[in-house]
Amino acid sequence: MNDYRAPLHDIRFNLEELAGLAEIRKSARFQDATPDVVNSVLEEAGRLAAEVLAPLNRIGDRTGNRVVDRAVVPPEGFKSAYQAFVDGGWPALPFAPERGGQGLPETVSCAVNEIWQSANMAFALCPMLTEGTVVALEQHASEVIKDRFLAKLISGEWTGTMNLTEPQAGSDLAAVKTRAEPRGDHYLLFGQKIFITWGDHDFTDNILHMVLARLPDAPPGVKGISLFLVPKFLLNPDGTRGTRNDVFPVSVEHKLGIHGSPTCVMSYGDNGGATGFLVGEPHNGLALMFTMMNHARIAVGIQGLSISERAYQKARSYARERVQGQIAGDMGRVTIIHHADVRRMLMLMKSGIEAMRALCYVTTASLDLGHHAANAAIRTHHLDRFSLLTPVVKGWCSELAQELTYLGVQVHGGMGFIEETGAAQHYRDARILTIYEGTTGIQANDLIGRKLLRDDGKAMAELVIDMRTDALAAGKSTDTDLQTMATRLSTAVTALEQAVDWLLTHGKQDAGAPGSAAVNMVMLVGTVCGGWLLTRAALTARSRLDAGVPDQDYLSAKIKTARFFAEHFLPRAQAQSQAICAGPGAIMALTETQF
Amino acid sequence: MNDYRAPLHDIRFNLEELAGLAEIRKSARFQDATPDVVNSVLEEAGRLAAEVLAPLNRIGDRTGNRVVDRAVVPPEGFKSAYQAFVDGGWPALPFAPERGGQGLPETVSCAVNEIWQSANMAFALCPMLTEGTVVALEQHASEVIKDRFLAKLISGEWTGTMNLTEPQAGSDLAAVKTRAEPRGDHYLLFGQKIFITWGDHDFTDNILHMVLARLPDAPPGVKGISLFLVPKFLLNPDGTRGTRNDVFPVSVEHKLGIHGSPTCVMSYGDNGGATGFLVGEPHNGLALMFTMMNHARIAVGIQGLSISERAYQKARSYARERVQGQIAGDMGRVTIIHHADVRRMLMLMKSGIEAMRALCYVTTASLDLGHHAANAAIRTHHLDRFSLLTPVVKGWCSELAQELTYLGVQVHGGMGFIEETGAAQHYRDARILTIYEGTTGIQANDLIGRKLLRDDGKAMAELVIDMRTDALAAGKSTDTDLQTMATRLSTAVTALEQAVDWLLTHGKQDAGAPGSAAVNMVMLVGTVCGGWLLTRAALTARSRLDAGVPDQDYLSAKIKTARFFAEHFLPRAQAQSQAICAGPGAIMALTETQF
Repeated sequence: MNDYRAPLHDIRFNLEELAGLAEIRKSARFQDATPDVVNSVLEEAGRLAAEVLAPLNRIGDRTGNRVVDRAVVPPEGFKSAYQAFVDGGWPALPFAPERGGQGLPETVSCAVNEIWQSANMAFALCPMLTEGTVVALEQHASEVIKDRFLAKLISGEWTGTMNLTEPQAGSDLAAVKTRAEPRGDHYLLFGQKIFITWGDHDFTDNILHMVLARLPDAPPGVKGISLFLVPKFLLNPDGTRGTRNDVFPVSVEHKLGIHGSPTCVMSYGDNGGATGFLVGEPHNGLALMFTMMNHARIAVGIQGLSISERAYQKARSYARERVQGQIAGDMGRVTIIHHADVRRMLMLMKSGIEAMRALCYVTTASLDLGHHAANAAIRTHHLDRFSLLTPVVKGWCSELAQELTYLGVQVHGGMGFIEETGAAQHYRDARILTIYEGTTGIQANDLIGRKLLRDDGKAMAELVIDMRTDALAAGKSTDTDLQTMATRLSTAVTALEQAVDWLLTHGKQDAGAPGSAAVNMVMLVGTVCGGWLLTRAALTARSRLDAGVPDQDYLSAKIKTARFFAEHFLPRAQAQSQAICAGPGAIMALTETQF
Repeated sequence: MNDYRAPLHDIRFNLEELAGLAEIRKSARFQDATPDVVNSVLEEAGRLAAEVLAPLNRIGDRTGNRVVDRAVVPPEGFKSAYQAFVDGGWPALPFAPERGGQGLPETVSCAVNEIWQSANMAFALCPMLTEGTVVALEQHASEVIKDRFLAKLISGEWTGTMNLTEPQAGSDLAAVKTRAEPRGDHYLLFGQKIFITWGDHDFTDNILHMVLARLPDAPPGVKGISLFLVPKFLLNPDGTRGTRNDVFPVSVEHKLGIHGSPTCVMSYGDNGGATGFLVGEPHNGLALMFTMMNHARIAVGIQGLSISERAYQKARSYARERVQGQIAGDMGRVTIIHHADVRRMLMLMKSGIEAMRALCYVTTASLDLGHHAANAAIRTHHLDRFSLLTPVVKGWCSELAQELTYLGVQVHGGMGFIEETGAAQHYRDARILTIYEGTTGIQANDLIGRKLLRDDGKAMAELVIDMRTDALAAGKSTDTDLQTMATRLSTAVTALEQAVDWLLTHGKQDAGAPGSAAVNMVMLVGTVCGGWLLTRAALTARSRLDAGVPDQDYLSAKIKTARFFAEHFLPRAQAQSQAICAGPGAIMALTETQF
C-alpha cells in the first residue's frame, strides 16, 4: 500500500491535449520530442520512481539526516538512488544540448518532475534545486563560470543549492547580512544561512552553493545584494577537485516533514572566508536569484500536485480494501469506497489533482512557447501568461495540497493518524509547500502587485477571454455534464472579474487593499483556472468519445471528474471573491492590543 | 512563547451573555453558581492550566509514552500534574452533589474543559474520558455498581476509558468480536481493543474500562453488543483494591500527534478471562455507549476550540515580536502583525475561535436547560436543540481547528515547520479531532439521518427562526458593522434553508442523497451558526457600548471580529449549500476502477 505508480494515462492526456505538446514540437528546438520519445521517457521515469525512489520515501522519513564531523549523513539508500538517477541521465532532461542537456521541453520535464516528487519528495528536492541552479547560471553567469561549472551540474555529477534565508531575513531579503569581500578574481564570504535544503550530502564530489551576500560598498536594502557561487570544493586550474572550501553544515533542523531532506544551517567563512565567485552584476543578486526562485516556484506547485497524487493513490488503495459498514438495502459489509462520503473525499482528491496537473502543465507549456515559438507576439503572450500564473501555480497548488493530503488521512480513519500507515507522512511533508520558496502571502503579493496592478489587469483580461471561450463551447454541447460545467464556470469567471475590478479600482489608492485581497486572489484565480482547464479537458474528452476513440473508461471519467470539480470546487470562487470585495476594513480594524 | 493564558474575558462574556448563565442559575440545582463562584472557578482553572499543565505540553509531545512490563509509562511530570488536578477537586466539577460532585452547570464545566484542553490536550484526554465514564454509569448502571465505583471516579481517584474499536470494527461497531461469558454475578471477557486512549497509566490506583463485547446468545450486528465495566484491579468486598484483573496494555501507537497521551492496544483475557460487570441491559450496549460518546463528542468539539486558541496565542505572540519587512510609506522595519495578510490570518483564527466558543457554550447551555429548566416545554426545546447541534459542535469545530492550526503554523513562516517552535505540535495534535469519537462523516450521518430527516427538519426550522430573529435585529441597528452582518447572515441562512429543503425533498427517496450531502451539511450548519452567534454577540456588545459599560476595547473588538467572520466565513455557506444541492450525481458517477 506504499506503492506509487505514475499516472501515465492522465499525464499523457494533459501533455498532448491540454499543454499542447504538438504545438511545442513545431519549434526547431523540440522537434525530436516525438510522442514515442516522450512516452518512453515517461515510462522509464515511472519505472525508476516506482522501483527505486518510492520505496525509500518512508525510510527517509523515519531515518532523517544528521551532521557528523561537519558533514551531513543522508538516509540509507539515498546515495545509490541518486547514482541511479544520474546514470539514467535524468538531470540533463530539459537543458540545452550545447551544454550536454537532452533538450526536451520544460513541459515534458514538468511531467517527469511530477513523477519524482510523487515518488519521494524529500529526495527529489535535491535535483530540483540543482535544476534551478543551472537555470540561474545559464541565464546570468559569465562564460568563464559556465564553462567551469555548468556541465557537471547538468549531468548531475554535482548538485546545487539556494542560500537566501538568514535568521533575521526570511521573506524580507533586504535584511541579508552575509558579506563578501573582494580578493582579486574572487571574493571571501562570511555569514550564516539557514533553511538550506540539501546544503550538504555525500551523493557527489562537489556541491555548488548559490549565495546572496553584500559587498562592502553595497547600498542598504534589496538593491545591495549580490549573488555568489560558492563551491564546496574549489577547482584546480585543470578543473579537477581542489581544496575544501570554508563552507560547512552546522546542523540540520528537526522538522514537521520532509525528514529525508536535510535542512541545513550553513556557515560561511568560519576559518578565514569561503571563496566565492560573483554571478552577474554586483548588487543585482536578488533579480538573478529570482530566476532560480521562479523556477523553484513552479517546481513547488508541481510538488503540491505530486504529494496529492501520492496521498490519493494511498487513500484509493485503502478505500478499495478496507471493509466497513453496509450500504442501505444491500446485504453484507462493503469496502468503504462504496460509501458516499468516502467517494466524495476521493473525488475531491481526484478532481483537485487533475485540475492542478492541468494548470502546472499548461503554465509550463507557456514557458516553452514563450521562449521557443516562432512568432514574437505569441512568445510575448505566453511569457505574460507564464508570469501571471507562476504565483498561482505555486500558491494554489501548495494550498490545495494541504486539503487533499488532509483528506488522504481522513479516508484512512483512525489508521490515518498512525504513522506506520504512511498517510500522515504525506500530510506532514505537504505542510512545507505553502511556506518555502515564498509563502502563499508572498506569492499573492507578487500576483497582485507585479502581475495584476502593474499591467492594469491586461494579462488577466486575456486569461478571462480564454475562459469565456471554453465556457461558451461547453454551453453549446448537448452533453448535460458539459452544460453544468458551463454554467458553473461562467458564474465563477464573473466572480473573478468582480474581484479583479475591485482590485483595480481600490488597489492603487488604498494602501491596505492589495495585501488584504492577496491570498484570496491566489485562491480565486487558482480555483477558476482549475475549473476552466477541466472544462477544456472535458470538451476534448467529449469530442474524442464522439469520434469513437477507444478510451471510454478514461474519457468518461474525465468528464465526470470535471463536473464534480465544477460542482464542488467552483462555488468557492464566489466566497473568495466576496471576501476580496469586502476590502481591508475588518481585516485592519483592531489595534494590536485588541488581538 | 509557549505560554498559555486562559482567555477569561471572552470566556466570561460567552458564559453570561451568550450561554445565558443567568437563566441556568434560576434552576434549583445551580443557584449556587453565582458570578463570583464561577469567576473564582475560572481563575483557579486558568492558574493550574498556566502553571502546571501548559508547561508539560511540549514535554509530553517529545517524550511520548511507552509500555514497560505490561504497563504504560507516561511522560515525566504527568503523574504529579494529575495529582494536583485531583487535589484541586476538578474532576468533580459538574457532577451531582449526592455522589460527591460540586454540582456546577455543564456550561461552566465546558468553559473549564476548554481551559484544560488548551493547556495540554494529551493530558486532558484522561479526565475527559473519566467524565464520560461517570455520565454513562450515572445514567445506566445499577445502584450496586454506582455505589461501588462512582465516587472514586468523580473524585478522580480512579480514571475511566472507552473501549469500542477493534481492528475490524471502527466506524462499524456491528463488527465487534470481543466476547463476554457469564460467570454468576460477573462475566469473563476475551478480546483485543485498539485505539484506547489512556488505556493504562500510573496516575491512579485503579482504572475502569467501559468495554463493548458480545454475550454468547447475542444476535448479530449492533443489536448484540453489551456494555461491561472492567476494572484494572478487582475490588475486595470492603471496597479496597483486590487482585489485578486480566486486562493489559499490549503496546502504544506511534502517532502523528497527541504523543503525550498513550493510545493503547488493550488485551482482555489472555490469562483466563478479564472479570467484567454488565452495565444496563444485555445487547443494549451500543445505546448506552452513545451516552458516553455524545458526551465525548461535545468534548472533542471543545478540543477543536481549545487547540485553536492555543495555536492563536502562539501565532499572536510571534506576530507581535517578529520583525520583517516594511509597510508602504513607512520608514523602518515592522513587526509582522502590521502586514495585512498576517492580520487576515490572525483574524481568521480569532473570529473562528470566538464562533466556536459561542457554539460550544450555547449548545452546552441547552444541555443544562434541557435537564434542569423548570418548564417541560423549555426542557424539550433545549434537548432537541442540544441533540441537533451535538454533531455540529463535534464536526464543525474539529474541522475548523484544522484550518486554524494550519494558519498558526503559517503565521510563523519557515519557523512554523521547525518542531522546536511548537506551532507544528498544535497542528499535529489537532489532526486527530476529525477522526476520533466518530469521524466527521459519522457526525454528518448523525446530523442528516437522526437529526434532520427523522423530525422532518422541525428542530432545524426552529433554529432558523432564532437566526432570522437576530439577523432582523442586526439589520435594524444604526451600526454599519451590524448592518453588514445582517445582510451576510440573511444570505447565509437562505443558503442553509435551500440545502435543508433539498435534503428533505431528496433524502428519503434517493439512497445516495443523505451521504453525499452529509459533511457539507455539517460545515454549512456550523458556518451559519458561527455567524449567527457572533451577530448575537455583536448585538449585545453594541448595546453594552451604548449603555456606557466601561469595556470599550473588548466590546468594539467583538463587533469588528463578528464583522470579519461575516465577511470571510459566511460566504462559504453558499458554496457549501451549492455543493449539497448538486446532489450525489457526480459523487457517485465513477465505477470503482475509474478511480
